[in-house]
Amino acid sequence: MNDPVSMACPLPDVGDGARIQLAHGEGGRLMRELLARHILPPLSNDDPADAADAAVLPALDGPPVFTTDGYVVSPLFFPGGDIGSLAVYGTCNDLAVAGARPRWMSLGFIIEEEFSLAALDCIVASVAQAARRAGVQVVTGDTKVVPKGAADGLFVSTSGIGERVFELPGPATLQPGDALLVSGPIGRHGIAVLAAREKLEFDPPPESDSGPLFPAVAALRDAGVPVKALRDATRGGTCAVLHEWSAACGASILVEWESPLVTPEVRGVCELLGLDPLHIACEGTMVIAIPRKDADAALDALRTVPISANATRIGTVIESRTAPVLIRRTSDRLVPLDEPLGAPLPRIC
Amino acid sequence: MNDPVSMACPLPDVGDGARIQLAHGEGGRLMRELLARHILPPLSNDDPADAADAAVLPALDGPPVFTTDGYVVSPLFFPGGDIGSLAVYGTCNDLAVAGARPRWMSLGFIIEEEFSLAALDCIVASVAQAARRAGVQVVTGDTKVVPKGAADGLFVSTSGIGERVFELPGPATLQPGDALLVSGPIGRHGIAVLAAREKLEFDPPPESDSGPLFPAVAALRDAGVPVKALRDATRGGTCAVLHEWSAACGASILVEWESPLVTPEVRGVCELLGLDPLHIACEGTMVIAIPRKDADAALDALRTVPISANATRIGTVIESRTAPVLIRRTSDRLVPLDEPLGAPLPRIC
Repeated sequence: MNDPVSMACPLPDVGDGARIQLAHGEGGRLMRELLARHILPPLSNDDPADAADAAVLPALDGPPVFTTDGYVVSPLFFPGGDIGSLAVYGTCNDLAVAGARPRWMSLGFIIEEEFSLAALDCIVASVAQAARRAGVQVVTGDTKVVPKGAADGLFVSTSGIGERVFELPGPATLQPGDALLVSGPIGRHGIAVLAAREKLEFDPPPESDSGPLFPAVAALRDAGVPVKALRDATRGGTCAVLHEWSAACGASILVEWESPLVTPEVRGVCELLGLDPLHIACEGTMVIAIPRKDADAALDALRTVPISANATRIGTVIESRTAPVLIRRTSDRLVPLDEPLGAPLPRIC
Repeated sequence: MNDPVSMACPLPDVGDGARIQLAHGEGGRLMRELLARHILPPLSNDDPADAADAAVLPALDGPPVFTTDGYVVSPLFFPGGDIGSLAVYGTCNDLAVAGARPRWMSLGFIIEEEFSLAALDCIVASVAQAARRAGVQVVTGDTKVVPKGAADGLFVSTSGIGERVFELPGPATLQPGDALLVSGPIGRHGIAVLAAREKLEFDPPPESDSGPLFPAVAALRDAGVPVKALRDATRGGTCAVLHEWSAACGASILVEWESPLVTPEVRGVCELLGLDPLHIACEGTMVIAIPRKDADAALDALRTVPISANATRIGTVIESRTAPVLIRRTSDRLVPLDEPLGAPLPRIC
């Protein structure tokens, strides 16, 4: 999990360096300079003509898939990532779990006046690095600056366009007997952000799983396995995905797993704070629904790809019960697994 | 200018009504309810399946054009519009001036905890109405809630996808002799927001020009006139567009106009506050570059469409001088028109 890519943007030493001014967001010369010096070059858009407000794209091979996300994570930098790489991977993963290869992205910043220019540089560099890793190109963007106190540092909004390469029947087609897999250990992102925000001292510190899922989706497609549904387990965690899928198909879901679902770091923090990892967000881990007979082939395919090397089974679709989602506790008793009303951890993405 | 559409979302009476909670942004049941009751129905996406994180789109007729924008306007409601309609028209106009028909949009909210749910309803209704007027469909979205004090009320981020129907050679092809037109009176949006923010008492209050420009672009295309470049004059105003175009083509631009460039309301506020309308943002007005011999045909075409009924000539491309942009003042002397470093009015979009 010591991914060199995700560690390449260390916490910046802000110091007394230059800071963002309101005028950097106002369409005049300072804004053009900010774009020309700090934002476009790392994104390899050196040509000022590329800074136009709209990008003309080449034609797509498959049907276009379109997604958007806002990022308000606090803190902006955490072990395993930062708001820049998180925005890229989050957007690309929304496309990937829709069966689409990520192709193009937009990048919007809302920046608080007096935000450190060095930290902005670091975030833009991280966006660029993550975009290269995810195979996506940042082609259009927007920067707004609001007065001191009108935002908390920096927010990012991204949209993504992909081309669909893998058609998925969707969660409404789930049936009793279908297997549910996860592409890796769950809860790592939420716990990493929580530990960073609350300055909890763990050695090693829990690290986010933030990363691009398309290679795992492509491995499933290339293996020819009949995947029914995919979903990245972000806000609300794995539990929210299972509840949504139960509602979509009208059957219940039984959670029971074969190999450990969590890392020792996540288990440690969850036990300490009384959190259930099933409720904690992932940012590079997805849930997969597939007919039971194809589950082993799917796991074999997933395990050929680094991001899903530790894929495992997490449950089964069962006939409808009184509760939409149940879990087999150690006592072998089935107990309902409730959906959280909100989420135990705000601002994790 | 008393457009019934843009006046349909009055300043909401917030009162003691329900307010946004942090949990509304956290992926659990409260968030699903917020989407199902307050956001999706006005946007005509009643099917919860449409609330997935990514939308699959039909194939496009022309090359896809992609744009994004963030909106931090203050106040959120102003005469002639609000942050919702502004976001729709702003995004559609970025597409229109790239020669593209707006087709699909994403809609992202970053909302401050305790924001009025009634105001949110009003903004969503305005988004829906503006989208219908602009002929664009909102197909994907995202909602984040940040703690009280971490944002100023509500920010909107949008992306748009259009299909290019009108190919424009671009501002690098401008030559001395080319005519520059504006599609309507300038400076109306910035002045309307400024007057609303500072509670300046004018009767009638200055009203924003926020509106969709694609019909005016389509009129130019249908007239068969050889338009060289289009640009909506938003942040930085008309002056910023002229400076960008001068830099792109290497020639200078002389500003001189035939009929009044500003409404009496805008002139009044500008004279009172010492502002130059050329520096003030528009949100439904574009600059058009076209060979001189085609200028009259272009004006005729523009004047067939309500949003550009008052189109007029604003200047000419001239041989390169010491200043990129010059203006003919009443004394008939040519004086340089400087680009603002930032902008006189922050947070107008």
